[in-house]
Amino acid sequence: VASRRGIVGGGLLAASTLALATAARASAAAERGTGDLGIVVERASGSVQIIETTGCTALGRITGLGDLSHASAVFSRDGRHAFVFGRDGGLSKLDLLRGIVAKRIVQAGNAIGGAISDDGRLVAVGNYEPGGVRVFDTESLAPVADIPATYGPGGTARSKVVGLADLPGRGFAFSLFEAGEIWIASVPPNGPPEVRRFQDVGRQPYDGFVTPDGRHYIAGLFGEDGLARLDLWRPELGIQRVLQGYGRGEEPLPVFKMPHLRGWAVAGGLAFLPAVGRHELLVVDRRDWTERGRVATHGQPVFAVARPDGRHVWVNFAHPRNDVVQVVDAESLAVVHAFTLGRGVMHLEFTPRGEQVWISVRDLNRVEVFDTRSLARIASLPVESPSGIFLTARAQRIGF
Amino acid sequence: VASRRGIVGGGLLAASTLALATAARASAAAERGTGDLGIVVERASGSVQIIETTGCTALGRITGLGDLSHASAVFSRDGRHAFVFGRDGGLSKLDLLRGIVAKRIVQAGNAIGGAISDDGRLVAVGNYEPGGVRVFDTESLAPVADIPATYGPGGTARSKVVGLADLPGRGFAFSLFEAGEIWIASVPPNGPPEVRRFQDVGRQPYDGFVTPDGRHYIAGLFGEDGLARLDLWRPELGIQRVLQGYGRGEEPLPVFKMPHLRGWAVAGGLAFLPAVGRHELLVVDRRDWTERGRVATHGQPVFAVARPDGRHVWVNFAHPRNDVVQVVDAESLAVVHAFTLGRGVMHLEFTPRGEQVWISVRDLNRVEVFDTRSLARIASLPVESPSGIFLTARAQRIGF
Repeated sequence: VASRRGIVGGGLLAASTLALATAARASAAAERGTGDLGIVVERASGSVQIIETTGCTALGRITGLGDLSHASAVFSRDGRHAFVFGRDGGLSKLDLLRGIVAKRIVQAGNAIGGAISDDGRLVAVGNYEPGGVRVFDTESLAPVADIPATYGPGGTARSKVVGLADLPGRGFAFSLFEAGEIWIASVPPNGPPEVRRFQDVGRQPYDGFVTPDGRHYIAGLFGEDGLARLDLWRPELGIQRVLQGYGRGEEPLPVFKMPHLRGWAVAGGLAFLPAVGRHELLVVDRRDWTERGRVATHGQPVFAVARPDGRHVWVNFAHPRNDVVQVVDAESLAVVHAFTLGRGVMHLEFTPRGEQVWISVRDLNRVEVFDTRSLARIASLPVESPSGIFLTARAQRIGF
Repeated sequence: VASRRGIVGGGLLAASTLALATAARASAAAERGTGDLGIVVERASGSVQIIETTGCTALGRITGLGDLSHASAVFSRDGRHAFVFGRDGGLSKLDLLRGIVAKRIVQAGNAIGGAISDDGRLVAVGNYEPGGVRVFDTESLAPVADIPATYGPGGTARSKVVGLADLPGRGFAFSLFEAGEIWIASVPPNGPPEVRRFQDVGRQPYDGFVTPDGRHYIAGLFGEDGLARLDLWRPELGIQRVLQGYGRGEEPLPVFKMPHLRGWAVAGGLAFLPAVGRHELLVVDRRDWTERGRVATHGQPVFAVARPDGRHVWVNFAHPRNDVVQVVDAESLAVVHAFTLGRGVMHLEFTPRGEQVWISVRDLNRVEVFDTRSLARIASLPVESPSGIFLTARAQRIGF
């Protein structure tokens, strides 16, 4: 905008200087829609690649983002900016149209993901150290609120925060690992955050998410079997425990990697959950959260993600069986296809209407793109140690 | 892009000329994200206004779009272009970043809405005259396929097409008014469309839509009570009739306006349907499509739209009670709020995460924007005889 205004105003020299500077920085085209953009995290090099899903190409790389192990991202409501949460507490605001870091702060010593408010004004980060949630203005990254995750006698201990998700009404839900609590907070435009605490939710909640319909917040428990569920329409009912014995069975197996809860698939009237430590998906009735069946899988599932039309659930697996992706039919519960892609299948992301899926294959240094109908590979992009893949369409969904 | 390349290449004069030409045409800023854009149809003047939901402002007007009564729109996968379907068969491709008509054709004599394929390559229009569906390339608007809605002895009669919606796999579903049929078609990248016909679905289907989970296509019937439902996962089961006697009750009342089916609200485990000719919403169990209750409303509902988190359903009404919007709690089924806004409340559209709702008030020549939590009005925009409001987030959803 600045450069265009400059030209129109007649300042040709200034304008061309600006344009040159911009062009030098810009690896993405400036004038284009943002609905088909996304980023792929290059974990080992602290960088991301900007990708687009119409031609299935990479538009450029942004470097200097710090420790991106377990990094995730959310997007501004206009789809232009990505907010990347690094493990080292870094919060980077990326301009996807110009291919640059618009702003970057290091807001904590150790962090684990974040969320953006429904009105797009607030970006919140869940921190391990110091334990709590910090909230920033999405425009400036200036601090807006600090919510220390205090607990214990006198409230002097600080708990790690996990499973941070956005709620309607400038709200956020998150879990306190050591404290065994779930908090929901809303951050009004003026005034301090309003926090509601739920105690004794179960031992060591290790991740949490909001169901796709926005109704429930669910936390997984590391310290015991089962899940903690909060009805966001009726929080006064408190925490309910569901799926006791969730996935572990009578003889627990060694757990190579705790499944990611954020990936849980909802398809038709069912939800598909990675069992903990077993080569199975649990099939759960969405209405009453009772188990309806199990699907035997290739390994310990990490992500189980529903194709957006709900017909198929795509699953990746923990080390050492992390070279395969399986496709499960949500009606017959049969595994209908399996791909062997290479070691280190880290993440998968569907385009919002489900016609493509993008899959990170870390040890091949490639992201593979498949047509989800024909199951044909339609693109293969060189990406350094790819992990998380995040598309701007997430900006349009609650809980992402 | 062209102007930026020109500058970088050193052609300053050419660049500035290009930039000036662009600026003269552009009422919207060129370099911005598109995820928060939308259009409002100005029905009487054959124009649309481009709006954005971050600052809640109008960015400009595009004129010359023909007869926009009952006009609707879909969006390109990148959110940059809107495809506007006019009643006169006009199909206009609008560039929202430049604020111009990128391309325009008149593809039939009388048309009623359209859809865009999941891969974004095809735009389909449902036509009254000549009855059928025509499919165009979204880039060029060149014709790709023509599907005449033939029926009757020898297949010589042509039926009006209504209720056109996209399906996964470059597919479309639509209903044939006079023929009483539902067709699903897919248009492969090479080769002719593959069409599957379902006959005797009921008399005079007048509108249809795909449920938000992408599972069912539902057609409303003008000629009889009840609805026709097709399970898109198992089309071999054929058409099932649901909700016999839907909404009319034992003594049908005069119907001032058939409700729009595309607006049906799904909230929690329930769907909320405008009853036909009665001052009621039907509350239906999504699982088995049985009636669970009714909500008494201010008038004959036209649109019943769920806030994206499903907690509230907002409803507008047919003439002569079309000055009011009511808000229904999806859990208690109580009317929790009513607004009197002025005559001719034509349409309402939520931002994708539900924090705002945009409402057209035709006779006030205004679009009103409300905060859906506080219910406070946060903006009021002058728009000439506003009717449909469509946000680019629709590009990211199946069946929109």
